[in-house]
Amino acid sequence: MTDSLRIVPLGGLGEIGLNMLLVEYGDRAVAIDCGVMFPEASMMGVDLVIPDVSYLRERPDRLQGIVLTHGHEDHIGALPFIARELVVPTYATPFAHALIEQKLEEHKLALPLERFKPGDSWHVGPFEIEAVHITHSIVDAVALAIRTPLGTIVHTGDFKFDQTPLDGQPSDLRRFAALGDAGVLALLSDSTNVERPGVTPSERSLGPKLEAAFRRAGGRVLVSTFASHLHRIQQVLDLSARTGRRVAIVGRGMVQNVATGERLGYLRVPPGLLVDLAEARSLPPERVTLLSTGSQAEPLSALTRIAMNDHKQVQIGVGDTVIFSSKMIPGNEKPIFDVINHLHRRGAEVLYETTADLHVSGHASQAELALMLNLARPRYFVPIHGEYRHLARHAALAAEVGVAQEDCFILEDGDVLEIDGAGARRAEPISAGRVFVDGKGVGDVGDVVLRDRRHLSDGGMILAVLAVNQQTGTIISGPDLISRGFAIEGESQAYLERAKEVVLEALAALAPESRTVPAEVKEEMRKALRRYFKKTLERRPVVLPFVMEL
Amino acid sequence: MTDSLRIVPLGGLGEIGLNMLLVEYGDRAVAIDCGVMFPEASMMGVDLVIPDVSYLRERPDRLQGIVLTHGHEDHIGALPFIARELVVPTYATPFAHALIEQKLEEHKLALPLERFKPGDSWHVGPFEIEAVHITHSIVDAVALAIRTPLGTIVHTGDFKFDQTPLDGQPSDLRRFAALGDAGVLALLSDSTNVERPGVTPSERSLGPKLEAAFRRAGGRVLVSTFASHLHRIQQVLDLSARTGRRVAIVGRGMVQNVATGERLGYLRVPPGLLVDLAEARSLPPERVTLLSTGSQAEPLSALTRIAMNDHKQVQIGVGDTVIFSSKMIPGNEKPIFDVINHLHRRGAEVLYETTADLHVSGHASQAELALMLNLARPRYFVPIHGEYRHLARHAALAAEVGVAQEDCFILEDGDVLEIDGAGARRAEPISAGRVFVDGKGVGDVGDVVLRDRRHLSDGGMILAVLAVNQQTGTIISGPDLISRGFAIEGESQAYLERAKEVVLEALAALAPESRTVPAEVKEEMRKALRRYFKKTLERRPVVLPFVMEL
Repeated sequence: MTDSLRIVPLGGLGEIGLNMLLVEYGDRAVAIDCGVMFPEASMMGVDLVIPDVSYLRERPDRLQGIVLTHGHEDHIGALPFIARELVVPTYATPFAHALIEQKLEEHKLALPLERFKPGDSWHVGPFEIEAVHITHSIVDAVALAIRTPLGTIVHTGDFKFDQTPLDGQPSDLRRFAALGDAGVLALLSDSTNVERPGVTPSERSLGPKLEAAFRRAGGRVLVSTFASHLHRIQQVLDLSARTGRRVAIVGRGMVQNVATGERLGYLRVPPGLLVDLAEARSLPPERVTLLSTGSQAEPLSALTRIAMNDHKQVQIGVGDTVIFSSKMIPGNEKPIFDVINHLHRRGAEVLYETTADLHVSGHASQAELALMLNLARPRYFVPIHGEYRHLARHAALAAEVGVAQEDCFILEDGDVLEIDGAGARRAEPISAGRVFVDGKGVGDVGDVVLRDRRHLSDGGMILAVLAVNQQTGTIISGPDLISRGFAIEGESQAYLERAKEVVLEALAALAPESRTVPAEVKEEMRKALRRYFKKTLERRPVVLPFVMEL
Repeated sequence: MTDSLRIVPLGGLGEIGLNMLLVEYGDRAVAIDCGVMFPEASMMGVDLVIPDVSYLRERPDRLQGIVLTHGHEDHIGALPFIARELVVPTYATPFAHALIEQKLEEHKLALPLERFKPGDSWHVGPFEIEAVHITHSIVDAVALAIRTPLGTIVHTGDFKFDQTPLDGQPSDLRRFAALGDAGVLALLSDSTNVERPGVTPSERSLGPKLEAAFRRAGGRVLVSTFASHLHRIQQVLDLSARTGRRVAIVGRGMVQNVATGERLGYLRVPPGLLVDLAEARSLPPERVTLLSTGSQAEPLSALTRIAMNDHKQVQIGVGDTVIFSSKMIPGNEKPIFDVINHLHRRGAEVLYETTADLHVSGHASQAELALMLNLARPRYFVPIHGEYRHLARHAALAAEVGVAQEDCFILEDGDVLEIDGAGARRAEPISAGRVFVDGKGVGDVGDVVLRDRRHLSDGGMILAVLAVNQQTGTIISGPDLISRGFAIEGESQAYLERAKEVVLEALAALAPESRTVPAEVKEEMRKALRRYFKKTLERRPVVLPFVMEL
């Protein structure tokens, strides 16, 4: 009897980001990707979200290796946290490898990190992994064909079918066709852009649009984009060279990635093109391009400081053009629009998502997703990388393309798809979820803590301190009331004075035998204060009573 | 010597919402609109934002009246708060009038509220006001021509030029043309959609698209839209009648507005069309339309509860179609997508902004804004209703249409444009801004309170209580440490135990003469705890030391 094959998503099925998925055969597993998710607004104070790997922690010998499909944060960002407890061979393409090395260095960590190239095949536990070149918004991205004793699983990673990519290397369509011919047991495919009809435009299609914007610009052009998007950066460099502009790079991440990209041969920087910021200041504005990070309005980024007129070396003003060659990541709209408003106040011309078409996505739209399904012709289909709405739509698309509806499985994190000789079915889910990183703490902030933070943020807090005689329950001192985040100083004092009386009245009404029980005194204070603020102000501050027994 | 004319925006110029603008002549003013803004994510715990009217409060006889251009919340919502202190004649069209009456009743307030109709003219202080019919996403919306001793000001309100509106009453183009012929001193025009090229589609253009969605639907159709959008509601009613569906209304606001709309003659409800929810349950699914509020995923709304399978009378499932005939208001995307994900989990087909084109905006796009400029041919131009980026772009559009650049004034809230015989110029700004409503408190939450709430939400809080001998400074009890929103219980206890020692060490190192000064003891505790949590965890909880002297 053979073992069964299991597909076990730990993250990324039910959300955008947090990508991590296990393929298991018997008691051995390989993990695909190990990414973070950026916190949602409700995850207050959280810096990063990583997948919960307690399933692997409790099965210490199971994981045989981690294979990374490309170098984006939502695919590699959790490595420094996961790698502290799961030290296994980790495989990445050269650019992702370089990004991971930087990251591990910052965290002072080491990992058995191996390099592979698109086209390579190698073994991880019971699996043979083959990396298939695909196009995406970062160089060196791959899909994976995972050969298992029960058949081949194709995991697309993040992809688009860019037929005219900047480096002349379209996705390896013929390899996907060959895999389909040989038989694909299951296809796991990127659902990020499944809501978009048609085909995602080629990276190359941006060239003429960027050029038109550059030619219209009278002064300096500042282009803000993702620091890892080397092809976008290449276009800006080439265009600047062609339009007689020198390029100065602003922002540490961009400087680092341009250097890495050039060192690895992914970026060709025309000699003499780059200048430092001091030199850029001495050139006529129409001879200068600034290439900058900060397209998501990160608070400390170069672009945010420039917009606030708070950057030491770069001032933007009338006559200058600022181009956001980027997508607004959902949740970042408000800070990005704040930056855009400030740039307008400086007098700059600003081109951005809502007003100009100067970005293309790295993810496949419906027609490309259908193409992938038709190339791979899988027995089973599992949509990955998306919220439930994306997964549901992708499953519907697969059904349209001809996969039987009962062979499409919408899984969410922790759901398990089991495949054996008898077919495929959902098995018992495993424990999976989100772990919060806050400062140096990993996992010490949970849902209760977040609920308390939301409560604190909503109404502030009232602290009530009372000292009582341990024997008699007589009040020795207090109640003293202090508030934070409740009301402006003058007004809160007035409320608190009245609230003191409310507490005293409530305590006076307390049965004598209860007065020596701190828990009861505290509960009475809490109830009295809650009632008071609810009634007078319709507010629910966090009430924190403290009783000191002396 | 004549007085000068002043345009004084109190809200809505620098943000979407909060619309309120004064036109002053000498020492008398009329206010146009009195709207709220919905709080941004950073305004934690705030329920509503209203304009700061201290400028008027300090000049009690100045305001002669408030004229409301239409019944949307961002134009009338602040009335119940402002009306407590500024009781002046308030003018509204019949539908807005009905909405305001409901609102005042809820607040147990009365106002000298007058009704006017499009086409009416009347006097307010030194001004003659003329209401000009325009189309918008609510019935009974008007632009205003304000005749002043120095010339006519045209304030567009919110508008679009719908040439084929559902009620057959397009905007009064010829009146705008006549006003332009007679001479417009200043045009104040809606900038909300200035980023969109072309023309906003007609409300009527939705008809065939909604019909196609209805005809495709096999089961029940639930349409969610804004409760005040009577023309949208009319389309859903007519379409249901035409496709053999009965309509059940879900949600208090929708029930109320349908009744008001029918009573005022803005809505024609075919006899026998409406059924209650109990009856709707007894009908075959393909014979039922549900018309619902909750398009913004308001937490208690009918649709949100239906999505969570938590509505007593309505369950949505496989075979049903849910249509969001609405825009996602910026900032609401995440909760709306949560609702959409849940509806997909229920098995429903869901049509929404990103996947279907079943909503049209009520605001004019670039070509319509240019048309308004060409009709009015103003001497001066002031873009209104928008963030800075909208205002800047609208000013640029006006310049393209032929208004001299120096005659376009980008004002923000509190800026003053002064016009007299010698021309127009910026005058000294006045005090304006945002007032926060939190529960029953109006204005008692300010920027410091919000900063504290953000700080509390970010790292939670640590309370440290110490009782000391007043004379000697000897510690009688404590330090006791309590935390909220800091770390999960087990872990926080461990941190707090260590932190106690840190406090004791810091206090031991304090000079003896400082130990009897509570302020110094508190400051030392605060510093020690901050340092400790920063160093060990990279966190910054709010530290609240409390010293009790006995």
